[in-house]
Amino acid sequence: MYLCILIRLFTFKHITMDSSYTFLKAAIELADENISQQGGGPFGAVVVKEGKIVARAVNTVTTGNDPTAHAEVNAIRTACRTLQTFDLSGCEIYCSCEPCPMCLAAIYWARIEKIYYAGTRFDAQQAGFDDSFIYEELEKPVPERKIPICQQLGDEGAKPLRRWATTDDKTHY
Amino acid sequence: MYLCILIRLFTFKHITMDSSYTFLKAAIELADENISQQGGGPFGAVVVKEGKIVARAVNTVTTGNDPTAHAEVNAIRTACRTLQTFDLSGCEIYCSCEPCPMCLAAIYWARIEKIYYAGTRFDAQQAGFDDSFIYEELEKPVPERKIPICQQLGDEGAKPLRRWATTDDKTHY
Repeated sequence: MYLCILIRLFTFKHITMDSSYTFLKAAIELADENISQQGGGPFGAVVVKEGKIVARAVNTVTTGNDPTAHAEVNAIRTACRTLQTFDLSGCEIYCSCEPCPMCLAAIYWARIEKIYYAGTRFDAQQAGFDDSFIYEELEKPVPERKIPICQQLGDEGAKPLRRWATTDDKTHY
Repeated sequence: MYLCILIRLFTFKHITMDSSYTFLKAAIELADENISQQGGGPFGAVVVKEGKIVARAVNTVTTGNDPTAHAEVNAIRTACRTLQTFDLSGCEIYCSCEPCPMCLAAIYWARIEKIYYAGTRFDAQQAGFDDSFIYEELEKPVPERKIPICQQLGDEGAKPLRRWATTDDKTHY
């Protein structure tokens, strides 16, 4: 029995690592192709559900005039269109590079359950991207940040949220 | 001369605060309308350039099956389409509620220069939204976070970024 458990554990680990390498390599290949095709930044991502890729995407910030069109965000949007849902529970995301704070939070909102990535925010920084800088900014107290943030009309701003809380006919997310 | 400076300071402050109230109220109104129209979450945002609104948007997460379609992200996408750029330097954003980490980082990527908001992440939390939870998650060390994050193939992942750094024919962002 112990041998059986050992074999199952080894096989499971082997298959899992094998699959995660395959999906991560697919994301890295997308990133590389995006440079050749001048499609945008050198980033790729795939979303996987039950062992199958449900979305592949690259960064299209500059070609699509959309600063939010990172590979991960594009992959999430594509996966949601394909699966016709705003909830990617049961999915994993494979990213050629560590997700920036925007993409990481988008992954949380999408309810994705596991993140794999290859390159780091520091590799991205060396290539001229702001990922690492934005992580640092979010860690700073608000008054020390580069972009000034000003709160006004707090009572009025809370009203729609209070109204939402007491509204029955709504879709939660 | 001192009187003149005082008058200018007062007038400038008066106009600025007046304008910011007007734009912020427009964002709050959008949030409120979005509840009535069952358009998605109770959030609105406007992007302003040189004193004029260039984009108005609401949250469309549930109606558009897009977990990234927060009001701020939608407003950034709309402003970029209108102005045909991925760089919103010179713009301000007015949000009915404090931007979540996804939207805050999106604002950084878009190069928006000032953020105004009304309701807080805690108001959002009381209405059932995860903004505050996601802020807390991003502050935690990676192994303590709810969503597991796994790095693999670091060398392979860094390659597209190194290739990008030495590529001449590219558009920076």
